[in-house]
Amino acid sequence: MEITFLGTSSGVPTRSRNVSSVALRLPQRAEVWLFDCGEGTQHQLLRSDLKSSQIRRIFITHMHGDHIFGLMGLIASCGLAGTGQPIDLYGPAGLEDYLKACAKYSYMNFSSRISVHLIQPGRVYEDENFTVSCLKLTHRVPAYGYRVEEKDRPGRFNVEKAIALGIPSGPLYGKLKQGQTITLEDGRKIRGTDLCDPPETGRKFAYCTDTVFCDAAVELAQDADVLIHEATFAHQDAQLAFDRLHSTSTMAAQVALLGGVKQLIMTHLSPRYAPGNAIDPRNLLEEARAIFPNTRLAKDFMTYEVPRNRTQDEPWQVAS
Amino acid sequence: MEITFLGTSSGVPTRSRNVSSVALRLPQRAEVWLFDCGEGTQHQLLRSDLKSSQIRRIFITHMHGDHIFGLMGLIASCGLAGTGQPIDLYGPAGLEDYLKACAKYSYMNFSSRISVHLIQPGRVYEDENFTVSCLKLTHRVPAYGYRVEEKDRPGRFNVEKAIALGIPSGPLYGKLKQGQTITLEDGRKIRGTDLCDPPETGRKFAYCTDTVFCDAAVELAQDADVLIHEATFAHQDAQLAFDRLHSTSTMAAQVALLGGVKQLIMTHLSPRYAPGNAIDPRNLLEEARAIFPNTRLAKDFMTYEVPRNRTQDEPWQVAS
Ligand SMILES: [Zn+2]
Ligand SMILES: [Zn+2]
Repeated sequence: MEITFLGTSSGVPTRSRNVSSVALRLPQRAEVWLFDCGEGTQHQLLRSDLKSSQIRRIFITHMHGDHIFGLMGLIASCGLAGTGQPIDLYGPAGLEDYLKACAKYSYMNFSSRISVHLIQPGRVYEDENFTVSCLKLTHRVPAYGYRVEEKDRPGRFNVEKAIALGIPSGPLYGKLKQGQTITLEDGRKIRGTDLCDPPETGRKFAYCTDTVFCDAAVELAQDADVLIHEATFAHQDAQLAFDRLHSTSTMAAQVALLGGVKQLIMTHLSPRYAPGNAIDPRNLLEEARAIFPNTRLAKDFMTYEVPRNRTQDEPWQVAS
Repeated sequence: MEITFLGTSSGVPTRSRNVSSVALRLPQRAEVWLFDCGEGTQHQLLRSDLKSSQIRRIFITHMHGDHIFGLMGLIASCGLAGTGQPIDLYGPAGLEDYLKACAKYSYMNFSSRISVHLIQPGRVYEDENFTVSCLKLTHRVPAYGYRVEEKDRPGRFNVEKAIALGIPSGPLYGKLKQGQTITLEDGRKIRGTDLCDPPETGRKFAYCTDTVFCDAAVELAQDADVLIHEATFAHQDAQLAFDRLHSTSTMAAQVALLGGVKQLIMTHLSPRYAPGNAIDPRNLLEEARAIFPNTRLAKDFMTYEVPRNRTQDEPWQVAS
């Protein structure tokens, strides 16, 4: 699970920060999931280590242009590349109609590769390894934060111990791996849980943008390994944040603190805080760290590998 | 009159070439006119010497995504910048509805700053210095080439000569400047044309994309100072050009030759001819030059100043 920031500016691109997009790479399945897709996202992908051909899902928070104007170009380019990979899109009301209108006027045929799913608060997607859910944030237009939960991995089954206990290999191993208790022919009862390492807790990733401070963000962030939260404004510009329903650095930090997250990364910075101006992004970072020390500031192409929650080092496991 | 290429790739962006957009800078009026606006045009503007705030008109050739997907973001950013400059857009059927649909779904309010004009073959725009006209090209969807004509400038009125001839300054000068013939009190007849330099022929700029070879392109290119013509394919891929209704390098050169232009610049190159591949852009340039020697190959951020058609050097005139 590796996060790459493709755009970290708010509203408009600057020379160093593009508009919103975050890539979540899942190396174990050779997939990339995008969160938001501002104009120029496909260009940023070209300049990154990510492969556009691996994009499998795109989650859209809200319909403001700086979060969606890169969708059509990306979809068109993926289509021209002819990889044929299906792409599932998730987003609020209007997303499908927007894409259909753009496709119509630009003479583009999506075919059946593209599926658009209307999101509602709650579960958005689930498979054997991941659950994605969303909640409604507080912004000027309907906006949703996302939470991706990796499912817990069962602990390793200790074959050596099973052999030492004289348990015959075969169907009994399967039961023990599932944590069941079995009775051997000699009458001994063996508990599977005694032969398995504790399960590895899955990682949790939360993505909250655009929003002013809200309870839904705290809920999405609960115990997250990493929280990406917007921080459009510095603390001293809190009035602007309330007026425009965006967050300050200190609101982002409050969400991280109340959510009990391990790592906060702030993004969606207003271009007004360009380095050299009276307030610059480092000031926002200091403000947030005063409340939640484990805070970082996103920049374009920054990559963050979400660490696995291993209970002990298991060098024989391939890192993913 | 200065041309800057903001995107020179066909269909999809590459690391070195963005999708279509060409800027025509008119320094004498501090205006920039864009021709096409593919995704990422506003990003290219940020990296160029051009000022987005000077964009006054945008001419769209056709509704394929690689020519229009940057419009919404550019308009939004110009709006957020709050310059308040009106922008007139010109394009084929569907352009206005496309923009309205995008604005609706992205909660954007264009206000009255943006006017969209539906183009028809013939005159598209005219003011005291310029005429813009269009003709229909031959592409898979309705596509129009543009021709910008600068109006001829009256020749300089030779004040020194008028004084030497003893013509009293005043209203007579105005008549002479207009080329009229006057009669002095002493009976001498003076022809204004004898006191004026010959008029300076205005420059002509033609922009032809996307199209296969067609008569309309030749007509648009007639006697142009500079012709920008698409050259998606190399000559050996002519069958692809005919199938997809794009041009080869040799078709672009034929248009330049038949139009009697001064300079051809080829753009809209297929990414398949990236340097290092079997055919690279220099091959397309050689093919074109064999037919029309005065050919250049566009690249992103290349600037071409269209020379004025001065009959003689006039160092006291400010170059524009
Ligand atoms: Zn935003
Ligand atoms: Zn094109």
